[in-house]
Amino acid sequence: MENEFNFKVYVAEKAISVNKALDEAIIVKDPPMIHEAMRYSLLAGGKRVRPMLCIAACDLVGGNQGNAMAAACAIEMIHTMSLIHDDLPCMDDDDLRRGKPTNHKVYGEDVAVLAGDALLAFAFEYLATATIEVSPSRILVAVAELAKSVGTEGLVAGQVADLACTGNPNVGLEMLEFIHIHKTAALLEASVVIGAILGGGADEEVDKLRRFARCIGLLFQVVDDILDVTKSSEELGKTAGKDLAVDKTTYPKLLGLEKAKEFAAELNGEAKQQLAAFDSHKAAPLIALADYIAYRQN
Amino acid sequence: MENEFNFKVYVAEKAISVNKALDEAIIVKDPPMIHEAMRYSLLAGGKRVRPMLCIAACDLVGGNQGNAMAAACAIEMIHTMSLIHDDLPCMDDDDLRRGKPTNHKVYGEDVAVLAGDALLAFAFEYLATATIEVSPSRILVAVAELAKSVGTEGLVAGQVADLACTGNPNVGLEMLEFIHIHKTAALLEASVVIGAILGGGADEEVDKLRRFARCIGLLFQVVDDILDVTKSSEELGKTAGKDLAVDKTTYPKLLGLEKAKEFAAELNGEAKQQLAAFDSHKAAPLIALADYIAYRQN
Repeated sequence: MENEFNFKVYVAEKAISVNKALDEAIIVKDPPMIHEAMRYSLLAGGKRVRPMLCIAACDLVGGNQGNAMAAACAIEMIHTMSLIHDDLPCMDDDDLRRGKPTNHKVYGEDVAVLAGDALLAFAFEYLATATIEVSPSRILVAVAELAKSVGTEGLVAGQVADLACTGNPNVGLEMLEFIHIHKTAALLEASVVIGAILGGGADEEVDKLRRFARCIGLLFQVVDDILDVTKSSEELGKTAGKDLAVDKTTYPKLLGLEKAKEFAAELNGEAKQQLAAFDSHKAAPLIALADYIAYRQN
Repeated sequence: MENEFNFKVYVAEKAISVNKALDEAIIVKDPPMIHEAMRYSLLAGGKRVRPMLCIAACDLVGGNQGNAMAAACAIEMIHTMSLIHDDLPCMDDDDLRRGKPTNHKVYGEDVAVLAGDALLAFAFEYLATATIEVSPSRILVAVAELAKSVGTEGLVAGQVADLACTGNPNVGLEMLEFIHIHKTAALLEASVVIGAILGGGADEEVDKLRRFARCIGLLFQVVDDILDVTKSSEELGKTAGKDLAVDKTTYPKLLGLEKAKEFAAELNGEAKQQLAAFDSHKAAPLIALADYIAYRQN
């Protein structure tokens, strides 16, 4: 059985590589506080799901970890930026994130806004300058893909719609999906697609992986919503039941808890279908990552 | 005299081209409010100094306006983003910008933060996808240069240091220059350098233009400080005397008004020296832009 894919070992190894790369990507230099604020949230022990998806997609199409590592870090910088800004008092006003005080609670609102801005900009600098052994034209496509996942076709659109819907009890499934596709799925999709591009994937491989990513993107949010109503704050490392408290529309609220769980299982199956054409041995990490997203407990 | 360079006509023509390109770069689509918020500040009648510097540098090394226009727009998006975020209540808390209510006064703090984020991300998307007839490797260098001018070696570093010094009467010339080099000069430098790169400039041409840009970058801030103490809010289109009111260190405060004016003249002279090796006819727009920065009244 020694050839069987061991997901726990895979995740542990990749998390160590990604954390080391992130730690080296942003070092503390003048002015120290802003770098400390950036590192505080970036190195706060995220699960590194997006970087792993990026690296796994790159591997699957024949690239190596070096081709994808700078992009994997850039994606995590973008993700961290969105968390810092979403937690601000003028947005979701959250005090707790990954079990620790949020960035603005530690460094103040002004520095938190700027730490997010700096992470956003540095993500593009790092992707453009630290990517190894990939043609400039492929890196440029990756820059565009990453940028698109942030703006008004990505994270920002989702957060805007989310803020507009908070406190509105009449939000329907269509709007809920708009929010989730933009707020969560866009960056997950970009993670996979960028990995495939930097790994040298052919157009049809990139397309298949984009469809895979769309399924797990939505899956991720459905599971997040389920966990929000079924887990305590301590288990989640963030304020649980918050969506319910502020009357946010969620999948369990709209569909009921059981139907929401069924929907998650369907999305997971659909995601795996997209990988059927690839070598099953090489696809094992992405299949396992989809299962991990579906069955995670926090 | 019909061959003589007419700066007023040049500025008017370039401003029309840049404003048209900006207007077309971001159109109102779903969700409408965030796009309206982005356009509100982006199209609020800025002087377009940075886009003009970018286009003029591109022309000077043999490129054409099309090579630089997407970058010129991207640079203005970054500049606008920094104004929106700097004006936030948790930062400089400004109500007036370019003679109009600031972004958060119109759209709320949450949308203002997100409009800035979206402009920052879209700047990179637009530079990467809308630049015409330039090799991917040169565009990628431009992406890195632009990103560097925003983060902890640029705008963000300057704003962090500025916030840390506000209310501290013991800020010296060295710290003042650090703030200005990062907060103002970095993006002006990037504007010129990116223009030169996208125009196909040789390394030594890019280096000369970088030195030119450093001088006018500092010049820009010295003049800004002088205007803050000599002009009314109405003339400036923003709150005048604000630096003094919040006890910010400025060049007039440190050097006295007359010495500050002399320093401005020196920087202008030094900037022009860097252009001596170029064809004087082709260098005319950059020389005139330096004079404009030195002698502007708002």
